[in-house]
Amino acid sequence: MQNFVFHNPVKIIFGQGTIASLAELVPARARVMLLYGSGSIKGNGVYDQVMAALRHHRVEEFGGIEPNPSYETCMRAVAQARSFGIDFLLAAGGGSVMDATKFIAAAIPHTQGDPWDMVLKKVPVSAALPLGCVVTVPATGSEMNLNAVISRTETQEKIPLKSEHLYPRFSILDPDTTFSLPYRQLANGVVDTFAHVCEQYLTYPANAPLQDRQAEAILLTLLEEAPKLHSEGDGYAVRANLMWCATQALNHSLSCGVPGDWSSHAIGHDLTARFGLEHARSLAIVLPAVLSHQRHRKAEKLLQFARRVWGVTETTTDQTIDAALARTRNFFETLGLPTRLRDYQISPADCRIIEQRLGAREPLLGEHQDLGAADVAAILALAE
Amino acid sequence: MQNFVFHNPVKIIFGQGTIASLAELVPARARVMLLYGSGSIKGNGVYDQVMAALRHHRVEEFGGIEPNPSYETCMRAVAQARSFGIDFLLAAGGGSVMDATKFIAAAIPHTQGDPWDMVLKKVPVSAALPLGCVVTVPATGSEMNLNAVISRTETQEKIPLKSEHLYPRFSILDPDTTFSLPYRQLANGVVDTFAHVCEQYLTYPANAPLQDRQAEAILLTLLEEAPKLHSEGDGYAVRANLMWCATQALNHSLSCGVPGDWSSHAIGHDLTARFGLEHARSLAIVLPAVLSHQRHRKAEKLLQFARRVWGVTETTTDQTIDAALARTRNFFETLGLPTRLRDYQISPADCRIIEQRLGAREPLLGEHQDLGAADVAAILALAE
Repeated sequence: MQNFVFHNPVKIIFGQGTIASLAELVPARARVMLLYGSGSIKGNGVYDQVMAALRHHRVEEFGGIEPNPSYETCMRAVAQARSFGIDFLLAAGGGSVMDATKFIAAAIPHTQGDPWDMVLKKVPVSAALPLGCVVTVPATGSEMNLNAVISRTETQEKIPLKSEHLYPRFSILDPDTTFSLPYRQLANGVVDTFAHVCEQYLTYPANAPLQDRQAEAILLTLLEEAPKLHSEGDGYAVRANLMWCATQALNHSLSCGVPGDWSSHAIGHDLTARFGLEHARSLAIVLPAVLSHQRHRKAEKLLQFARRVWGVTETTTDQTIDAALARTRNFFETLGLPTRLRDYQISPADCRIIEQRLGAREPLLGEHQDLGAADVAAILALAE
Repeated sequence: MQNFVFHNPVKIIFGQGTIASLAELVPARARVMLLYGSGSIKGNGVYDQVMAALRHHRVEEFGGIEPNPSYETCMRAVAQARSFGIDFLLAAGGGSVMDATKFIAAAIPHTQGDPWDMVLKKVPVSAALPLGCVVTVPATGSEMNLNAVISRTETQEKIPLKSEHLYPRFSILDPDTTFSLPYRQLANGVVDTFAHVCEQYLTYPANAPLQDRQAEAILLTLLEEAPKLHSEGDGYAVRANLMWCATQALNHSLSCGVPGDWSSHAIGHDLTARFGLEHARSLAIVLPAVLSHQRHRKAEKLLQFARRVWGVTETTTDQTIDAALARTRNFFETLGLPTRLRDYQISPADCRIIEQRLGAREPLLGEHQDLGAADVAAILALAE
């Protein structure tokens, strides 16, 4: 096991009826900005529950945060928040709203220079407004981590930002909020969660058997629960389980003491920024291709994945890995997510700028930090 | 899944050579009390590493904390800490030292009334000194939770204390510190960890499949790693894995959204207080007896435990549960921990006071909170 530091101070309030606890969670004297997306929270009752809980607080609103939240939108929120003297941010939505809120929290006190420098040039975040989340989409895990991903429209970039200042003070996870989601968004969330786990699990063995099994625990639960989204049974329980899987998949516990390979997310972000693919849909294409391309260097973990997650053991290593990857693709496709670039009328040749950009980054991609432009090209060819 | 709140702010620093990070972790101006046990840290290099890291800090010492730390010893530390104006406590040791340090942290500012009231009468802990831990025994998980267990010599009581004020600010886990432990203590730690998991896992189904698998992840890792303690191979990796299992087993993540049955610990604590049994050894006796006594009400989870952890599926439910319990006993005994009261020359008749005391507590024991004196007697009879 590698040395590691783990420190996740987020308070999670999980379950039915918990939005009312905002009344105590948000500091009484705070000047709050409530941030949300396209306004679906006004149709599904979340907005009303939030405003009822905060009826004794001073609350301003900023709606209209788009999927893959843009720097441009965030900076409008920053200007408004500064003018209102906001000192607490409350995100109500999915990963896009939470990520935007994190960037906004860091940007408000960043008055020396352009806040985009924290994203592009990795200027350290030195402070951030306190923030809380009401999660309405189980997917990104942003509710319990220090990550945000922000897009810049003019340059077609989508870039992650990390800082310990960006941990939410609390996150409320009420599975009831997810009943109004279209199936497509729930399915996307399952694939996003699956990918998060794989990127921390499918690298090289680090003698960390507990972390391996914790990763497999999430994957097996996703395989078991996701098909139930279609059935009539206990919808709450299924949503609760998928929601807790999403949070646990990216709260930094799986990455304790083990290497990570975030190349699927890096390539996927660029596909989203360039072609507008939904985040999870980019991962459904890229993850199987990355695993296929790195099948020799990841062989030990892929065999374990095949055996423990998919229950397959074929005659040869190659056959076993092929079977595991075929089942992974099939899982994504059964959920309704295509796994090929051609399903979106994209050809690898359209992706040259992605290969160049990722081939020039430091460090390079992959758990060995050595995947350059030619590797990205080969991965995209496998995703054709 | 039941509603839950999860909030664990402990910073974990894990790995070889990490004790040196104390220099930055302990506030520069703190007046520190270093607490330890019988002095083994002076023989194994831990004391020297701690003092080297804190060479620019003001440090007082309090040694001699005994296994199952007593109120009486703790109160001597409280008096010393008050007289020195101590404002930061550093525990260097195993569960006993950490638990004592937690109680001392709460007792120092508790100047109105007897601090024992926080344990016996559950007077809420209203404040505590900040504390940190250098863990030298993987076992209790105290390094990442809000629990402490304190004994009172004069009344032969051993009672838990809980408070959010008792979370360590940080815990350093360097597996190298465990190389000087006798095998007996490592084996005890494995059984303690195993019991912690079972008490959160073996109750009734709560439709929480991820939490179930996270519990099984720890149990399977213990079964795989513990036998390696005897072999010549990579001792560091084995110790690192057992250490991380112990921490993860009782950091409140497994109990999210599920019922718990802490009757093995409650009965075990009383056996320790009355007969002086080591903590893990009391659990090795009581846990199989509790599971056997509650086999009908726990049947669904016991069958899952049998199948997933032990790989056994016999013809009937009873045979399957019998096989799982036999293997559990055998695992403990192979580690060197007897599983019968008679192995310690204790008869159930010697335990009448334990039955009476536990039968009078509120709430009663078990996940249904309905196990009274007759049930405790029946459990002890099964442990004969």
